[in-house]
Amino acid sequence: MPSNSDKKELFLGIDGGGSKCKAIIVDADSNILGTGISGPGNPLHGYDQAVNSITESAELAIKDAGLIDIELNDLIAGVGLAGVNLPALFEQMSNWQHPFKQMFLATDLLIACLGAHKGQDGAVMITGTGSCGFSYVNGHPYILGGHGFPHGDKGSGAWFGFQAANHVLMSLDGLKEESLINEKLLTLLNVKDGLEMVETIAGKPAAFYAKMANLVFDAAEAGDNVAKEIVLEGAGYISGVARQLSKQNPPRLSLIGGLTPRIMPWLAQDVKDKLAEPLCPPEVGSVIYAQQQLALL
Amino acid sequence: MPSNSDKKELFLGIDGGGSKCKAIIVDADSNILGTGISGPGNPLHGYDQAVNSITESAELAIKDAGLIDIELNDLIAGVGLAGVNLPALFEQMSNWQHPFKQMFLATDLLIACLGAHKGQDGAVMITGTGSCGFSYVNGHPYILGGHGFPHGDKGSGAWFGFQAANHVLMSLDGLKEESLINEKLLTLLNVKDGLEMVETIAGKPAAFYAKMANLVFDAAEAGDNVAKEIVLEGAGYISGVARQLSKQNPPRLSLIGGLTPRIMPWLAQDVKDKLAEPLCPPEVGSVIYAQQQLALL
Repeated sequence: MPSNSDKKELFLGIDGGGSKCKAIIVDADSNILGTGISGPGNPLHGYDQAVNSITESAELAIKDAGLIDIELNDLIAGVGLAGVNLPALFEQMSNWQHPFKQMFLATDLLIACLGAHKGQDGAVMITGTGSCGFSYVNGHPYILGGHGFPHGDKGSGAWFGFQAANHVLMSLDGLKEESLINEKLLTLLNVKDGLEMVETIAGKPAAFYAKMANLVFDAAEAGDNVAKEIVLEGAGYISGVARQLSKQNPPRLSLIGGLTPRIMPWLAQDVKDKLAEPLCPPEVGSVIYAQQQLALL
Repeated sequence: MPSNSDKKELFLGIDGGGSKCKAIIVDADSNILGTGISGPGNPLHGYDQAVNSITESAELAIKDAGLIDIELNDLIAGVGLAGVNLPALFEQMSNWQHPFKQMFLATDLLIACLGAHKGQDGAVMITGTGSCGFSYVNGHPYILGGHGFPHGDKGSGAWFGFQAANHVLMSLDGLKEESLINEKLLTLLNVKDGLEMVETIAGKPAAFYAKMANLVFDAAEAGDNVAKEIVLEGAGYISGVARQLSKQNPPRLSLIGGLTPRIMPWLAQDVKDKLAEPLCPPEVGSVIYAQQQLALL
């Protein structure tokens, strides 16, 4: 069993998103010793919750690794968080009196990109609940989209669900054609008409709409024209993001996030031809970031 | 000066919306004696505020009319409110221990329609901050749209502003063409780039987006293709609402709401040909509603 007396550095990798926070403990030889998962780690939804989730997931990862002599202040933490692209949140999280030996803070985008390309230059399109494009080439980070829901994040799970809801409401009013989406959506929401549907969806956040995304892809794959139009519009946006990112000359380009298997087949052929498999998950990217920053010191 | 001793009924007409509550005092001969305006009267934004705004606007109207001997419990109130199309809010407002002699509660849509057609059958399209279609024929109310922002209310001020913001964010990312809208919107919001724009617009309500609607129409009228496409899509929806309402055979059809002068020129010709001037404002419709309900008792 490893212990403090090994004298080798232990790293903590954090991927803090809007729905959960993932932690891994990694040794100096890049072996993953343990993992932990807790609640939302995105400071956009509250600073206190974010720091609690980070701490909790780290403690769970230590426990999972069976590292009985190790405490949080033995760990060098790479912390990747959604939301810290906003300067105010970056500053707030940087000022956290964190319990770690050292902390290196980065955006969720940078750690995802570093993970996908194992620390090398590259670009990623992320489409899950939200959507975003990011490249990191010659130390230069470049962000596309990622503006949030509902005003941005086209081609994300939330966007697909939102388009579906829009369509169904207009269709129930007789102002748009019927679609396979109609029945699938009413069933998923367990409502019988537009009025009930509005009461159910009004004011709901991105994660709620993202749950409707799969049924849009199901309907599109079954040949439904309305669904195909929505899917092609969203996938077309992601293809546009890929082409725009390519102008930064990233050596590799990956598509990541929960919607990847659904949206991949609908991307433009020239984009599909460029895609490379992501090599490691974002929390590994956080460890890589911490190691890179340490090497610079 | 009229007083209680006239022994003639006095009516209160209320039009309670999301931004303000309007009240009028009307005598039995339909003369408007006084008016009052207070804060939001829409119970969707809070029951307490709604009942306070209704009471306050009524007291202001009594004062404006110079009716020194008249109290709220001398008035027969017709109260038209946004939001009470939702059964839970209708019940809550109906159970209000109101200070009036009698109260007749109706939706904002019904009183707008009764006002526009002076108590006769007809239909209205409303486009202001939100959008909605409504007809009232042979005692049968029929609602189209009005699902709320951002999931519905196409062709409303909020919808036009939202489309503009969507476009500008993608355009600043190089993923959509530039448009006259870009500079107009950045100037209105007093921001210099996408990041600042997102910080300004994130989480904002319909009323915020509705303030951006005029610049879309300005750009469209100046020949901007992006703006024209947005305006034609929104106006096309309103034209569709008009055609759908016409299936109910309303004797008259009116377009009302703050966006009326902007959107009217962009409607389909067959719809423009059918439009009739609204005869009275919604608060007069509330009085008409109260009088009609009294006659039924």
